[in-house]
Amino acid sequence: MQNTGTHRTATQNTPRVDTVPGLLAEIADIGTDPLRGGYSRPVFSTAELDLREWFIAHATKRGLDVEIDGVGTIRAWWHTPSRTTTGAVLTGSHLDSVPGGGAFDGPLGIASALVAVDLLRARGFTPDKPLVVAAFPEEEGSRFGIACLGSRLLTGAITPEHALALQDPDGDTFAEVLTRNGFDPRAISADIEGLGAFDSFVELHVEQGRGLIDLDAPVAIGSSILGHGRWRASIRGEGNHAGTTLMRDRHDPMVAAARMIQTIRDLARTTPDARATVGRLQPVPGGTNVIASRVDFWIDVRHPDDTVTLALVESIRSALELLGAEEGCAAQLTEESFSATTRFDTRLRGRLERMLPHAPVLDTGAGHDAGVLASVIPTAMLFVRNPTGISHSPEEHTTDLDAQVGAERLADVLQGLLTE
Amino acid sequence: MQNTGTHRTATQNTPRVDTVPGLLAEIADIGTDPLRGGYSRPVFSTAELDLREWFIAHATKRGLDVEIDGVGTIRAWWHTPSRTTTGAVLTGSHLDSVPGGGAFDGPLGIASALVAVDLLRARGFTPDKPLVVAAFPEEEGSRFGIACLGSRLLTGAITPEHALALQDPDGDTFAEVLTRNGFDPRAISADIEGLGAFDSFVELHVEQGRGLIDLDAPVAIGSSILGHGRWRASIRGEGNHAGTTLMRDRHDPMVAAARMIQTIRDLARTTPDARATVGRLQPVPGGTNVIASRVDFWIDVRHPDDTVTLALVESIRSALELLGAEEGCAAQLTEESFSATTRFDTRLRGRLERMLPHAPVLDTGAGHDAGVLASVIPTAMLFVRNPTGISHSPEEHTTDLDAQVGAERLADVLQGLLTE
Repeated sequence: MQNTGTHRTATQNTPRVDTVPGLLAEIADIGTDPLRGGYSRPVFSTAELDLREWFIAHATKRGLDVEIDGVGTIRAWWHTPSRTTTGAVLTGSHLDSVPGGGAFDGPLGIASALVAVDLLRARGFTPDKPLVVAAFPEEEGSRFGIACLGSRLLTGAITPEHALALQDPDGDTFAEVLTRNGFDPRAISADIEGLGAFDSFVELHVEQGRGLIDLDAPVAIGSSILGHGRWRASIRGEGNHAGTTLMRDRHDPMVAAARMIQTIRDLARTTPDARATVGRLQPVPGGTNVIASRVDFWIDVRHPDDTVTLALVESIRSALELLGAEEGCAAQLTEESFSATTRFDTRLRGRLERMLPHAPVLDTGAGHDAGVLASVIPTAMLFVRNPTGISHSPEEHTTDLDAQVGAERLADVLQGLLTE
Repeated sequence: MQNTGTHRTATQNTPRVDTVPGLLAEIADIGTDPLRGGYSRPVFSTAELDLREWFIAHATKRGLDVEIDGVGTIRAWWHTPSRTTTGAVLTGSHLDSVPGGGAFDGPLGIASALVAVDLLRARGFTPDKPLVVAAFPEEEGSRFGIACLGSRLLTGAITPEHALALQDPDGDTFAEVLTRNGFDPRAISADIEGLGAFDSFVELHVEQGRGLIDLDAPVAIGSSILGHGRWRASIRGEGNHAGTTLMRDRHDPMVAAARMIQTIRDLARTTPDARATVGRLQPVPGGTNVIASRVDFWIDVRHPDDTVTLALVESIRSALELLGAEEGCAAQLTEESFSATTRFDTRLRGRLERMLPHAPVLDTGAGHDAGVLASVIPTAMLFVRNPTGISHSPEEHTTDLDAQVGAERLADVLQGLLTE
């Protein structure tokens, strides 16, 4: 552009305003997964630790006060409060990913919150009440098996004893991994009082479906989270040589697992609105020329009506026991986590609808820390359009424009909540 | 025992005679697998490298000349020959294991060969012809996917180009792993001339079935190896979120794989004498809350009649394409290895039957380096009773007594072959 004479220039007094695509570009090389594509950023992996550093650096650069609690949640405070301050507003999301996940599930909420702070300052807005940007650990549960582990611990939805004993795929416990990262496992506890300082929590997240594509809108307000849980099926048979063991002499847990996976799909298909998925399966020992001695697989089950979810799981349990016995195997189903359907706070949602009159209201089938924190803090969500409709995959996407518009709408909402 | 006066004492001139259980006890702690139980000793892992050191130390202590060829085979020579020496006798087995395998599959043959050398010396036997004890690398194919990789390279059954490009589960190629272990990948080649120095190869192996239990005998002579191969099925679907993707919108490769595993079992059951196994399966990305985008699984197929094996594989291929399409997935079947049914050299077997008149003759469903080397060297096998009948599992076993008797029978056979 030609210089046409006098024009505004950025000065040291003009707040820096990052963009969401600009922030995400800074972390585009962290935790890429050459085998699966996309990103693998399990909690406390090198990749996730790098993302934590990145978040802390950005928070510090903005003059926010960073504190890290005993379970590893990072909270960056705009206006440091005392512990008894009330009326604070919480926003944020998570940095960890599923294996081979996309770039947006989690980091979009963190980057948008940082940019929202920039936008509020650029508007000359100074909040009366504290605003906190948080990153919650192990939202995906991809390392220790229980989703939203950090927010579950903070709200008391899981006991420290249960959480500390959880093992990652290498057999390391959550306690050991916490210790290795400088935390004291004996010090972790629920923090109902600390969370009580917040009047509201707003999590912005990439949409994980096609709702906003169909509605041709960039941002939606969340209404509810589908009830969901994870169950682990463990089938024990008899490990043996693949060449020397006759077909009729086998007790093959892989065949039993295969029959179950098909049965689970059939049961879910005949239950309207249910979703049941087996995405993870581990044969033991896992050799090509070895009949497995044990097969573990995990079942993700979701339905808007929690009684239907649990009834479906009971049908799965019965089928598992029956099929296991038919194959001469011993089968067991264990609940690893269950979250009831969450309907977000109606009053808070009404306030968001007034602040964003053009935003549609959508529910979601995906779990979020927002669903867990909703039991303690009035909670709301914003979803940003995903043009592929695909999530938990390298194909998950948001356009640069929608990502930036999402941060602007988040800034609008935070400004409203900090003002009213 | 009370000292009753004069008695023989061991002197430095009396050759040391180790026992097979004694030798195996020395390596009982190497490569134990706390997750799967048993042993995981993939080729060129720390465990397998430790076993190599152990074998070389024992060979050296016995005054054998150790040479290691370009693919990693260790050969320990009693009477170093020139390259043109003919009439040499080869024995040995392998040190690597399947994941979570037993203590005997492989190491029993190595330990028995070392003890056979001791026994021959204790008998005052000095061979006219060289005897070589060998350890072949990657017999199980548990790291690079192709069983008997070392013997296949030596006999030219696989090209160096094909072998060097094979990848382990971490994505490292065989070429990279060779280089890391001090080998020059450009130098690997078939060694038909070197193998031509041998008049016979005898591999002793733990039995991988119940034949010797039923016959109430400790040692058998092998007659043939069942034809067998490995095929990799790869099913590509659409990775997506387990919660937000409706059942009817899915292209789930795990469901297609599950249906196939059941179909493979059904096809094998209806084909007399056939064995087909899926013991290894990898969903990608493998997250609990993620519909897989791809599932790879490996099929081990065996039958005495090679045309039946290949016809069964074609039925599997047709079913895979059909079921894949029904699930909206793209499915592919690739041969990773195939070994025709091997009938061991009749003349050599006749000689063994005369040397061990009480030993029954058994075939085996398991593949061995002996089956590959049989294309170049007259080859025989000895099997030692396994009281569980189970192999490729921590439950694989031989009694101390049977293990020692096996080494004695191996010594008898080697003495005969070196004398006649």
